[in-house]
Amino acid sequence: MEQFEVGIDGSSIVAVATAPGTGGIAVVRVSGKDAIKIVDSAWKGASLEKADSHTVHLGKYVSTAGDVLDECVATVFRAPNSFTGENIVELGLHGSRWIQREVVADLIRRGARGADRGEFTRRAFMNGRLDLAQAEGVADLIAASSKAAHALAMSQTRGAFSRGLEEVREKLVEFAALLELELDFSEEDVEFADRSRLKELAKGLLARLDRLAASYSSGAALKEGVPVVIAGIPNAGKSSLLNLLLGDDKAIVSDIPGTTRDTIEDTAEIDGVLFRFIDTAGLRATTDTVENLGIDRARAKMRRARIVIWIFDPTAEEAPQEEEYGRFASENPDVEVIRVVGKGDKIPAPPLSKGMLMSMKSGEGLDTLRQRLTASATGGYDPQWEFIVTNARHYEALLRSGEALRRALEGLESNLSADFIAQDVREATHHIGTITGAVTTDTLLHHIFQNFCIGK
Amino acid sequence: MEQFEVGIDGSSIVAVATAPGTGGIAVVRVSGKDAIKIVDSAWKGASLEKADSHTVHLGKYVSTAGDVLDECVATVFRAPNSFTGENIVELGLHGSRWIQREVVADLIRRGARGADRGEFTRRAFMNGRLDLAQAEGVADLIAASSKAAHALAMSQTRGAFSRGLEEVREKLVEFAALLELELDFSEEDVEFADRSRLKELAKGLLARLDRLAASYSSGAALKEGVPVVIAGIPNAGKSSLLNLLLGDDKAIVSDIPGTTRDTIEDTAEIDGVLFRFIDTAGLRATTDTVENLGIDRARAKMRRARIVIWIFDPTAEEAPQEEEYGRFASENPDVEVIRVVGKGDKIPAPPLSKGMLMSMKSGEGLDTLRQRLTASATGGYDPQWEFIVTNARHYEALLRSGEALRRALEGLESNLSADFIAQDVREATHHIGTITGAVTTDTLLHHIFQNFCIGK
Repeated sequence: MEQFEVGIDGSSIVAVATAPGTGGIAVVRVSGKDAIKIVDSAWKGASLEKADSHTVHLGKYVSTAGDVLDECVATVFRAPNSFTGENIVELGLHGSRWIQREVVADLIRRGARGADRGEFTRRAFMNGRLDLAQAEGVADLIAASSKAAHALAMSQTRGAFSRGLEEVREKLVEFAALLELELDFSEEDVEFADRSRLKELAKGLLARLDRLAASYSSGAALKEGVPVVIAGIPNAGKSSLLNLLLGDDKAIVSDIPGTTRDTIEDTAEIDGVLFRFIDTAGLRATTDTVENLGIDRARAKMRRARIVIWIFDPTAEEAPQEEEYGRFASENPDVEVIRVVGKGDKIPAPPLSKGMLMSMKSGEGLDTLRQRLTASATGGYDPQWEFIVTNARHYEALLRSGEALRRALEGLESNLSADFIAQDVREATHHIGTITGAVTTDTLLHHIFQNFCIGK
Repeated sequence: MEQFEVGIDGSSIVAVATAPGTGGIAVVRVSGKDAIKIVDSAWKGASLEKADSHTVHLGKYVSTAGDVLDECVATVFRAPNSFTGENIVELGLHGSRWIQREVVADLIRRGARGADRGEFTRRAFMNGRLDLAQAEGVADLIAASSKAAHALAMSQTRGAFSRGLEEVREKLVEFAALLELELDFSEEDVEFADRSRLKELAKGLLARLDRLAASYSSGAALKEGVPVVIAGIPNAGKSSLLNLLLGDDKAIVSDIPGTTRDTIEDTAEIDGVLFRFIDTAGLRATTDTVENLGIDRARAKMRRARIVIWIFDPTAEEAPQEEEYGRFASENPDVEVIRVVGKGDKIPAPPLSKGMLMSMKSGEGLDTLRQRLTASATGGYDPQWEFIVTNARHYEALLRSGEALRRALEGLESNLSADFIAQDVREATHHIGTITGAVTTDTLLHHIFQNFCIGK
């Protein structure tokens, strides 16, 4: 395992592991060879050094200055049976900011070091408790804000994703071995490996890599929230539909970062999938400069959306609406458009053009629309399915692996010599290895773990 | 113990105990007779029902719908050796909001009840694990934001305050007993108890109650932060002094509730005591209506302050400054004024009037000022001292107890019959009892615990 190139020093690290702020309880976590010894030096109560693993003890935390900082509980985990694989003590403190700050400061005075972002999880990785994709799953799990995102992160932390990749990686290794077998016999000028069989193998693997890379579009949307723009001419019923979509669902998540609040209208979870519904200005031809700016912005949002719900107004002129739609659809083939015909309560007969009929007033058609939204969002992928890419880094590695494998396939087809082809296959293998951390560098690890919070 | 009038039903309660929001870890706490059984029904791993007290177990939390909500640790505490005195399970979860929400909802589906504010601590009180003053100390401990406030809350949670009061209460009971002894012999018309001895006893107790009640002014200030207004004519150096006081101290607490941000300038901890420094408009005679409004506000702030640092400008006219000062000091005898003579770098000789000399430029005199501030704030009370009143409810009870005892003393002095006096002494005893919860009502408990956070 190349990962051990990046060594762990003998230090013990400390951080608050619970959410920042005041709470009933706060947990301060210490991990490292000397973790138990360090905490025990501040502990008035039964000796922690003599305590069994996985036991909890009531006692007093006394600072180096001799002040009782808290009466609290200490949980002892002994290496290797802990999250990090090292000795861990978790202090369950009264949750004042002051106590949290003072206890961490005191533990630092006693020889622990303030943990970097994600350093506990990084140590878990270094000690072989988690592979890299699992470690990244931990961060995703903590950030997950919908059932689908949670399920994806959970399967990733549990290693299902890694096992799937390991299977691909083993097939690539086998492929390279077959090529090298051919190489060994090359002096006898015998094509030992059946090249047509190798081609089939490469094609199968490539299809699998492509399918995985393609799943990223759904995976990222499921993780971050699926952007849905509601479009249509002014007064088509856009705002009513937005209210209908949001109001019907109690799991409205309102804590969106303030920076994006101006563009995202609101989010709602439908059947476990988080959607980010985006309102737009009504689309129409106008000479009003300000209004045109709004319409330009609306079109830009539509181009970046994953799904556009396009509301047609059957009580208005058909041609301009179809014209605008046609232009958008031809220019943005990747954006899925759901055609809705609104004002279903005002028109007696099926409407002007194909599209699902809805009444924003009675809510007729809403269930169908919701089903279409979740079906489109998951893109045929079951959110419970274990093998879907949600991470940009993994996506990039899969693309690069696919490129290398595609070159190998071309090499096979143009009858290049096995050593050239084997090099491409090894490159494809390498990129898959970076996902689980079979191959890694300090820079890569730094890049990954600096996105974690401190204390994780 | 009358407290058991307020019964506990057999229910188990659940809440997130850590600070709200996303963190590395979140702790969900379940307490009650069935707490272990309820969590165990969701638990995939070694049986929690069979687990020893104070042990930690790794496992999976599976929802009633069959979804794995988290891989996490469960800590089992068995009655009566737990915070509440009941069975407790603490789940150490991955700290996503989604997991926290879903696990709590699932535990409610399994029969737990969402905890009210402070309900865990309330149960600890009901089960005799804490008295009422200790329970209130828990809330203060969590809110404490300075060393002094922390030390006061800590001694209160540890029962030192309660023991002090219990001593007073026992003396009152003894007093009542002596009076009743007199009563028993009243038919023989013998003043059995020596009334002059009783008077001495009452006077001694009253002095103690008064001293305690008086400590509230310091106690409340130490707990909430001591309000200090910096006053003086325009350009006397008020802002420079504020910067000097704040800048020199690294423990600046900047997370003041937004509602008060407009009046409080900033807070700083000096020698363990939290100060809230308040800036004011420069004081001078002017006909400008707007400026006069500002000056009126400044005077109002000064009247409400505990300490005013009054900066005299030796380079400006002396008379108007002394006049303004004299008026304030005579109208507000309770506000301590620290006289400072600023611009110490600009004047060669001792200044116009008495007051400590400072240079805002060189920082000369700052240490002396800081010492005077902490001495004034603690008012002679050592923040480490165990018997100081910090709670408005306790203060009120002490005042009422003192009033009743004062009536008893008057009764003794005007030779009233022992039964009248005994009634006053019993009332004095009752009020002391409400502090520790020896006497309590459901309304009182509700009032106290609704100020706690949920999960504590």
